[in-house]
Amino acid sequence: MAWINLVTLLALVQYFVFGLLVGRARAQFGVHAPAVSGHPTFERYFRVQQNTLELLIMFIPALWIAAQYWDPKIVAAIGAIYLVGRLLYLQGYVRDPKTRSIGFGLSMIPALLLVLAGLVGIVRALI
Amino acid sequence: MAWINLVTLLALVQYFVFGLLVGRARAQFGVHAPAVSGHPTFERYFRVQQNTLELLIMFIPALWIAAQYWDPKIVAAIGAIYLVGRLLYLQGYVRDPKTRSIGFGLSMIPALLLVLAGLVGIVRALI
Amino acid sequence: MAWINLVTLLALVQYFVFGLLVGRARAQFGVHAPAVSGHPTFERYFRVQQNTLELLIMFIPALWIAAQYWDPKIVAAIGAIYLVGRLLYLQGYVRDPKTRSIGFGLSMIPALLLVLAGLVGIVRALI
Repeated sequence: MAWINLVTLLALVQYFVFGLLVGRARAQFGVHAPAVSGHPTFERYFRVQQNTLELLIMFIPALWIAAQYWDPKIVAAIGAIYLVGRLLYLQGYVRDPKTRSIGFGLSMIPALLLVLAGLVGIVRALI
Repeated sequence: MAWINLVTLLALVQYFVFGLLVGRARAQFGVHAPAVSGHPTFERYFRVQQNTLELLIMFIPALWIAAQYWDPKIVAAIGAIYLVGRLLYLQGYVRDPKTRSIGFGLSMIPALLLVLAGLVGIVRALI
Repeated sequence: MAWINLVTLLALVQYFVFGLLVGRARAQFGVHAPAVSGHPTFERYFRVQQNTLELLIMFIPALWIAAQYWDPKIVAAIGAIYLVGRLLYLQGYVRDPKTRSIGFGLSMIPALLLVLAGLVGIVRALI
């Protein structure tokens, strides 16, 4: 499970860095806690981190379950696409919220694929 | 663990659908990213998805731990009640935020039960 | 894995209590759902719960992975520091958002340490 664990931890490190960027934007644009709005660029960083949180809760359990039914190296490779997708999502969203679609798709589709892989694996195990 | 994995993935699919409904409400009521407010109905869908995220982080680890100490089929059945409860929560919240209590209870109580089942299981294992 | 499971469930119970405090603040300061702002003290409780959610998604997977490579009792002890740190974070944030740093550090650093421990464990397993 080393590769699955590695992808999981890299996703957490990436998410942590997104959190650091929110903190930096907070200081840079003078948005003081507990406020989470007040400057459009701050809000973009904040939404990137929030959306990544929203996706991680799906990505990690799906990754771990899919790895129980399929070759962990292939499952980890799908997870690696997610990591790249999230990076593109950050870049797109901060540049212009309208261009966030590619990165969004490249991270959402791998997550959904892992859910589907898990479901197919379960059906095959139960019948 | 097939039943536990199945309940987990169904909870993720349900949560993903809640996210789609937020996206649809975004388009329908003209609430453009990164804004997360601006129309009461949009805000209800958004809060349903957020609250489900807030509960999933509790539900999934508790489900997995409880299944280590108790019959996985019974644990999965408690998880199935959560799935129904969340559906009722969505319907109630969108119709009228004041009627969201039944669905909230029917999903929060199973989650808490799983936490409790895990704690009892641990105490029994440690003594 | 009893100690790791125990720390996980205690973190979930703590997070659930933070959610109860948000509900209480909602009633106390008249912030009706789906609103999540309107009174500074409510917003502090809300941000504590949200920030704990944001950290839990990192803490739990990192705790579980680190326990695969290192002595689970030591890993669980690092997790226990997280629990204390979060409590101090709540107290600090509600008293004055500017004093939340100590509790934030005492919960963020253990989470990061677990991520690092997992990464070192993986590298050692792969080479």
